[in-house]
Amino acid sequence: MKWSLTLIPTVKEVPADAEVPSHRLMIRAGLMRKLASGTYTYLPLGWRCLRKIIRIVREEMDAAGALDILMPSVQPLELWQQTGRDVDYGETLGRFRDRHGRWNVLSPTAEEVVTHLAAGEISSYKQLPVNLYQISFKFRDEFRPRFGVLRSREFIMKDAYSFDATPESLDRSYRLMYDAYCRIFRRCGLDYVIVEAESGEMGGSGSHQFTVPCDTGEDIIVHTEDNTYAANLEKAAVDPLPKQTAADPIPPMQEVHTPAVGSIEAVCEFLHTQPHEMIKTLIYVTSENTLAVLVRGDHDVNPEKLTQATGGQHVELADEETIKKVSGAAVGFAGPMSLVEKGVHLIIDHAVAALPVGVTGANQTDYHIKNVVPGRDFPLDGDNVLVTDVRNAVEGDTYNGKPLHFKHGIEVGQVFKLGVKYSTKLHATFLDEQGREHPCLMGCYGIGINRIMASAIELANDPDGIIWPISIAPYEVLITAVNLDDPQVAQTAENLYQQLKNRGLEVLFDDRPLRAGVKFKDADLIGIPLRLTVGKKALAEGNVELKLRRESDRRAVPVDQAPDRVRELVDQLYAELNP
Amino acid sequence: MKWSLTLIPTVKEVPADAEVPSHRLMIRAGLMRKLASGTYTYLPLGWRCLRKIIRIVREEMDAAGALDILMPSVQPLELWQQTGRDVDYGETLGRFRDRHGRWNVLSPTAEEVVTHLAAGEISSYKQLPVNLYQISFKFRDEFRPRFGVLRSREFIMKDAYSFDATPESLDRSYRLMYDAYCRIFRRCGLDYVIVEAESGEMGGSGSHQFTVPCDTGEDIIVHTEDNTYAANLEKAAVDPLPKQTAADPIPPMQEVHTPAVGSIEAVCEFLHTQPHEMIKTLIYVTSENTLAVLVRGDHDVNPEKLTQATGGQHVELADEETIKKVSGAAVGFAGPMSLVEKGVHLIIDHAVAALPVGVTGANQTDYHIKNVVPGRDFPLDGDNVLVTDVRNAVEGDTYNGKPLHFKHGIEVGQVFKLGVKYSTKLHATFLDEQGREHPCLMGCYGIGINRIMASAIELANDPDGIIWPISIAPYEVLITAVNLDDPQVAQTAENLYQQLKNRGLEVLFDDRPLRAGVKFKDADLIGIPLRLTVGKKALAEGNVELKLRRESDRRAVPVDQAPDRVRELVDQLYAELNP
Repeated sequence: MKWSLTLIPTVKEVPADAEVPSHRLMIRAGLMRKLASGTYTYLPLGWRCLRKIIRIVREEMDAAGALDILMPSVQPLELWQQTGRDVDYGETLGRFRDRHGRWNVLSPTAEEVVTHLAAGEISSYKQLPVNLYQISFKFRDEFRPRFGVLRSREFIMKDAYSFDATPESLDRSYRLMYDAYCRIFRRCGLDYVIVEAESGEMGGSGSHQFTVPCDTGEDIIVHTEDNTYAANLEKAAVDPLPKQTAADPIPPMQEVHTPAVGSIEAVCEFLHTQPHEMIKTLIYVTSENTLAVLVRGDHDVNPEKLTQATGGQHVELADEETIKKVSGAAVGFAGPMSLVEKGVHLIIDHAVAALPVGVTGANQTDYHIKNVVPGRDFPLDGDNVLVTDVRNAVEGDTYNGKPLHFKHGIEVGQVFKLGVKYSTKLHATFLDEQGREHPCLMGCYGIGINRIMASAIELANDPDGIIWPISIAPYEVLITAVNLDDPQVAQTAENLYQQLKNRGLEVLFDDRPLRAGVKFKDADLIGIPLRLTVGKKALAEGNVELKLRRESDRRAVPVDQAPDRVRELVDQLYAELNP
Repeated sequence: MKWSLTLIPTVKEVPADAEVPSHRLMIRAGLMRKLASGTYTYLPLGWRCLRKIIRIVREEMDAAGALDILMPSVQPLELWQQTGRDVDYGETLGRFRDRHGRWNVLSPTAEEVVTHLAAGEISSYKQLPVNLYQISFKFRDEFRPRFGVLRSREFIMKDAYSFDATPESLDRSYRLMYDAYCRIFRRCGLDYVIVEAESGEMGGSGSHQFTVPCDTGEDIIVHTEDNTYAANLEKAAVDPLPKQTAADPIPPMQEVHTPAVGSIEAVCEFLHTQPHEMIKTLIYVTSENTLAVLVRGDHDVNPEKLTQATGGQHVELADEETIKKVSGAAVGFAGPMSLVEKGVHLIIDHAVAALPVGVTGANQTDYHIKNVVPGRDFPLDGDNVLVTDVRNAVEGDTYNGKPLHFKHGIEVGQVFKLGVKYSTKLHATFLDEQGREHPCLMGCYGIGINRIMASAIELANDPDGIIWPISIAPYEVLITAVNLDDPQVAQTAENLYQQLKNRGLEVLFDDRPLRAGVKFKDADLIGIPLRLTVGKKALAEGNVELKLRRESDRRAVPVDQAPDRVRELVDQLYAELNP
């Protein structure tokens, strides 16, 4: 492609709303333009990159035996109501009423539709296993889209859904995807880690997340130094803290007036205490019960662990009215005392149970209570009381006795064992060899195509621009012709362009009548892995100049050897990604 | 691909709602399944076909110099309000409010977004011409989805948008697309005709429609026998009818009481007259004026021609209240008398002007009026009176003196010259060599990807199933192995499968342990162009059997010659599509 014939609108200005390098560079290099909050138009370079990623994903999915299909993006809300995910997704689920008054959703994922399909088409164990995937438009109405395509509203996702007859077969299907994902991310040039993950709203029983570690990522990976354990923050388990005992006997509980004191920090300052001595009492509801969840003042409730603690129920924070009814006080003054007697279930984090004494809300507006002893002033066992791990890991925690470390990352893919959650609700069953009916065992497997692009940029860029991996670079080779008004330069550049294309290379030819400096700046910005410079001076000696974007070295190469040399270098770059 | 490893759920039953062969066969051959009204999941065979069409479209668009991009499907309603197309599209435009209360539309096409993009990126004549295209998900909330994918709600469309500096350059861009479309449809194996079309809601100044003639099509093509003129019904011009003169002088107008008489037919029966003697008076409004449109009782108003007659204004039927105000009568009793005096504009079809005398509404509820003489009882010229062509062509009409013929067809593509409609409203301008600012001249070019698939099936099928053109067939070759329990058959089939794949062919291998009859029936149903049958009997003589789906002949071919022979035949089938 000749640069003059395509649209690569590079810009110097950094967009005001771009907080991370990938967002900044995708705008500056002319890969995309924002249309509205969280939606982008992909311009020729950006879309080429996405299509190359799509090709790699498709090749590996096909090689793993998955079947390429396309499901509708507009789906009946009714199907989502059957699994309850319309509620789980909440406002993130885009929905609209059509002209006949029927409600539809804009697909953020397709468990319902694929399970509904399987219910109609699969009837016998002989048809299993089967794995159906699609690469398609998805929509999530994010509350706060940011970081460019890392958290956008509209994106391209590869989503796959496996159906198996036995747990062993599901294990194989899961492993096939796990291995395919490793190949996909490696071929895309990403350094990634695989961590244990919660299956969350997918409702599954096992999951791994593929994450690209980088400081700008929104996900947090928790791992031991030797990496024998690695999980995302949602999943990361922590060892229970040792039970602390008080040096002196604890006097009875004592109410203190804490008027107009809101946050944990304010309460601590007022009472001259520390957050880790506070017991936060948070009221949640499920469809069946009211829960009081206790975590230390310096800890956060982990919603995934809380869901697990309730046996997989949908859990949400109680509204103000419920909190008042349960605690008898305004929001912010709940405490665990006497709640079990009112039928409330207590879920107590290990770290709270380990406290010798603490401060908590008094179940009375504008009052807290001191000298609260877990086990004395509220139960640590008995009916409707559970002491477990319901908080996020923090610095200082251990797992299996080993200290936990934290790093940021970008989630690019996740694999889940779903089990029978969807197949039961949507009647996707099969008959086994004995003619007995069972729900299909399902797995689901997602990859964020746009996120692969962004995380590749996060991983490799410098102050001058992007440094693409060869496999997903919009073009493999850039020919930069300077002094184009010199007929020999123009002719040589044109010849090389044709020769490289004839060798099957993807070539961008910068044929613009611009100054060399501008062209080199643009070359660095758009980050094509290999640059071939044709200029008057080198050409006088029969040479052109070869340069890898990731290196500063330039090598003079005789013109007639250049095409072969470029082909070799490109092959070498690919070989690095397929060791 | 081995049949046992993919999902091709063929069925015998014809779906109850399938009215046309392509819909029936796409379900029966397991190409797709309905999810909801007008939305379909494309299964492996159907999606392969669509992807092969997409590849052909992309190759030809790229070859024509168009640039591949991807625009958001979810678009701000605000942009659509700026062009007024939110009103033009009406309820067909899917729209939803997001969590922040902003209105979005689901893109049925992308003029607004691409013009908004151009406004930001194009500033100089040096950047022109440029043609941007995408192949992507589109949504139209059709009132009555039907005919399978021929009128669906969700579909894949290739939409391209050209930007030019001069009319001559727009002509060239338009011609490039026109020629690319010819190559695309030919390569897809479609017999098509190109007819003049109205640009309608696109708001353009010239258009051609690519239509596949077939009885099941919803579009109507109007043409002279020698095909020197061909247009779609929306566009087709007709010669004015000769002015008829009455044999005897016409008595003055006479009111007649026509109580409880609604339709034209009922009025005719009541008054012993004929529809072609009736003058229908239809009240329309634009943003500026009220119009009375007169056509004969046996004719229909052509909305496109009416739009043209108003100079391109958005025209819609008046509501009941307006009609009552204008005519002074209930709906159904309007007449042209005295309307101009009330400030109403008269648009009179040639055929009405040619009547010697007619019957029309009396502008009084339950009354009609006889002996109405055009030119005597209402004006045929003067201010706010226009006699022109505003009706659909019908049997008996001529154009340039030649009788018009009618046939049905499926629209698969359309090209439009848009002019400056969008670029003016959305400020997509450029500076010319003299530094003067002009709006870009635009064209837009659409292809319905799913419709190509359906119309290929409409064109070529028989009672046994589909007969695919080689270029878009899900696979090029089907190996049908019968007597698979015979080791020699199994081994030979497997060898041939590998050899054909090694020759770069797309091969489906029916390895299912089913009776030969079932496999042949399925083979005919899914319609792969070339079938290679491996069976015990022929194999005993060293042969396999070759058969083209479109022919009944079977040819015995020695096993070792089969791969070359298949390759030759496949090449030959492609050559037929690229003459």
